Amino acid sequence: MKRLVLLFAAAATVVANAQQNIGFRATDITSPVVNDDHTVTFLISAPKAKEVTVRGDWEADGGIGKCRKVDGVWQYTTPPLPSEMYTYRVNIDGVMMTDPTNPFTCRDVGSVFSLFYVDGGAGDYYQVHKVPHGTVATTWYHSNTTNADRRLTVYTPPCYEQNPGRYPVLYLLHGSGGDENAWTELGRIARSIDNLIAEGKAEPMIIVMPNGVCTTEGAAGETSDNLSFRPTMTNNIPGAYKNGIFELAFPEIVNFIDARYKTIPQKEKRAIAGLSMGGMHTLAISANYPDMFDYVGLFSAGVDFSMVDMDQPAYANLDEKWRIQAQKEPALYWIACGTDDFLYNNNKEILRHLDEAGMKYVWHESTRGHLWSNWRQYFLIFAPQLFK
Amino acid sequence: MKRLVLLFAAAATVVANAQQNIGFRATDITSPVVNDDHTVTFLISAPKAKEVTVRGDWEADGGIGKCRKVDGVWQYTTPPLPSEMYTYRVNIDGVMMTDPTNPFTCRDVGSVFSLFYVDGGAGDYYQVHKVPHGTVATTWYHSNTTNADRRLTVYTPPCYEQNPGRYPVLYLLHGSGGDENAWTELGRIARSIDNLIAEGKAEPMIIVMPNGVCTTEGAAGETSDNLSFRPTMTNNIPGAYKNGIFELAFPEIVNFIDARYKTIPQKEKRAIAGLSMGGMHTLAISANYPDMFDYVGLFSAGVDFSMVDMDQPAYANLDEKWRIQAQKEPALYWIACGTDDFLYNNNKEILRHLDEAGMKYVWHESTRGHLWSNWRQYFLIFAPQLFK
Repeated sequence: MKRLVLLFAAAATVVANAQQNIGFRATDITSPVVNDDHTVTFLISAPKAKEVTVRGDWEADGGIGKCRKVDGVWQYTTPPLPSEMYTYRVNIDGVMMTDPTNPFTCRDVGSVFSLFYVDGGAGDYYQVHKVPHGTVATTWYHSNTTNADRRLTVYTPPCYEQNPGRYPVLYLLHGSGGDENAWTELGRIARSIDNLIAEGKAEPMIIVMPNGVCTTEGAAGETSDNLSFRPTMTNNIPGAYKNGIFELAFPEIVNFIDARYKTIPQKEKRAIAGLSMGGMHTLAISANYPDMFDYVGLFSAGVDFSMVDMDQPAYANLDEKWRIQAQKEPALYWIACGTDDFLYNNNKEILRHLDEAGMKYVWHESTRGHLWSNWRQYFLIFAPQLFK
Repeated sequence: MKRLVLLFAAAATVVANAQQNIGFRATDITSPVVNDDHTVTFLISAPKAKEVTVRGDWEADGGIGKCRKVDGVWQYTTPPLPSEMYTYRVNIDGVMMTDPTNPFTCRDVGSVFSLFYVDGGAGDYYQVHKVPHGTVATTWYHSNTTNADRRLTVYTPPCYEQNPGRYPVLYLLHGSGGDENAWTELGRIARSIDNLIAEGKAEPMIIVMPNGVCTTEGAAGETSDNLSFRPTMTNNIPGAYKNGIFELAFPEIVNFIDARYKTIPQKEKRAIAGLSMGGMHTLAISANYPDMFDYVGLFSAGVDFSMVDMDQPAYANLDEKWRIQAQKEPALYWIACGTDDFLYNNNKEILRHLDEAGMKYVWHESTRGHLWSNWRQYFLIFAPQLFK
């Protein structure tokens, strides 16, 4: 560790001229407003702007809304939106920004977005209700493979501490550009599982969300690289993408979790799932360690083999590994993809490989594309099928 | 709990036109750049803007920097800044926003700010180094007083799980407008204590950060009010401010922590400290429960008695309570305030009360005002004095 020296003496020589308040919310505008008919109205105060546009991850109007100035405030109202969580940014004269008066944001890869929910369906699951709540912890495990302490997020269910019993474990993997915060921040996973457990739809389970970028210790800003590592798509990071190192090292994580937490350390009580790049990780991990997981979930899996070094141990002889995995008859091999996903055809190709290997799987085809709304909804369908 | 209904069928009827990418970072600009001489350069791309200003919580130039357009990019460079963490926003033609290309943000009360560090002193402590790391968990306790599950943040030190031993506990309270995330997000407390422990300067300790706004379950966006509760200064919330309910109910939290965690449940191994409103809470809690805490820290304490109902049980007869507390001789009663703080004179008045009560205390007078830089630095001075 670099030697740290406190320099309070130096600070004391600075002439005091404190900015005791660098500007909290300076307007009475509340934006967005989710209306009773599930339309959503954005209100942006930008008196000198020539053009204001809202751009979000909904489908209506193509996710683009041109604002009109009404009583001096730029406004746009969407058509009615399906119940979901939505993220968006505002474009004011060519500058993309979060909604200036919305305090609720999340980071997706390198950009910060504003967010809101529409009630009445899936979106209800992503919100907090008066039900027993689990605990979300960020902690660190040591990886001998990468010779580093690495950060991961762990959800433990309500009553985990009081109950003397042991729990099944779901390992849940993020996509390219994501990190160990992605499933809690963008996936709203603690809320979904709290609510599914409270309704009796899902078994109480531990959910482990590791970091799948083996060149880093964890999320951008949370490692010893601090702010010098800026978040980017994982395929832009040399040595980080689909070389099979993370996949082959995965037992390190399982061993750490089994040692630290009250798990049931058996195949029948372990599941693994992942989105996009994490779907590819899931595919390879479960094929290479066929006695480790009884439940497998691929969410819009990034199964583009042209981008993978198929000579690497994790990816070599996959057809043969699938034959062995198929003979062990996993309790669930669940594959979900949207019809608009740019990986749709790649996923269909995987089905042909699995068919040849004699693997029994469930194919779930949804609408829409490579989107967090799909991944959140896949989880709501996948989690209730686990550990029954 | 409201009955939740999945409406996947309804979603399937929407014509698919997925926004598979709603716009990640679209520029090669990196802002800010912390230069070797500790000046900081901001680069803002706003081609159509008439005026661009940076506003931050540093003292140089009054924290305001007017940008000039250089090669089509708005730029401003600060004078050299003392080592710290800094937050700022950008004003483009009257719209306040985060720096469009800086992915690192934090929320303070109702506004989202961009952030950066300057190395070489206190700022080093707020960053991650290659040292053993503790665990940060958000969990929930039940309050009989408010008849609600309430959210709190708990730091456990490195080796907490492996070590069979038990640990002292610091209770650390936020200010008005803050919540149970404030000390981890804005206070960078997990990094500071990891680094202090690694240097042998502080004892390994548990740090508990509850929510001091007794009308809520927790931080805005994290409760069953979801996004309908927007963050605001606590004194704007009816029934939430300095009525003594949180203070009198405090043993609920201590009992929960002693039951859940491997604590040393003795006065000699308990500390309490808080900033601003949390300093007032600390003052009242430690006076009302003089056998609970041996270490007390007031950081820029919000000790404006004109805003408190002195007839409430928590605030009644404080002078008499202080006399009793003084007789019990706390191991440390530490009071810190900046010379520019608008609460400076109120804190000096508290010293006179404590003098009359015969309380031995340590007065730490810093430069600057009612600022997170002071509170982060107070922690670096306070924590090493605990549990020795």
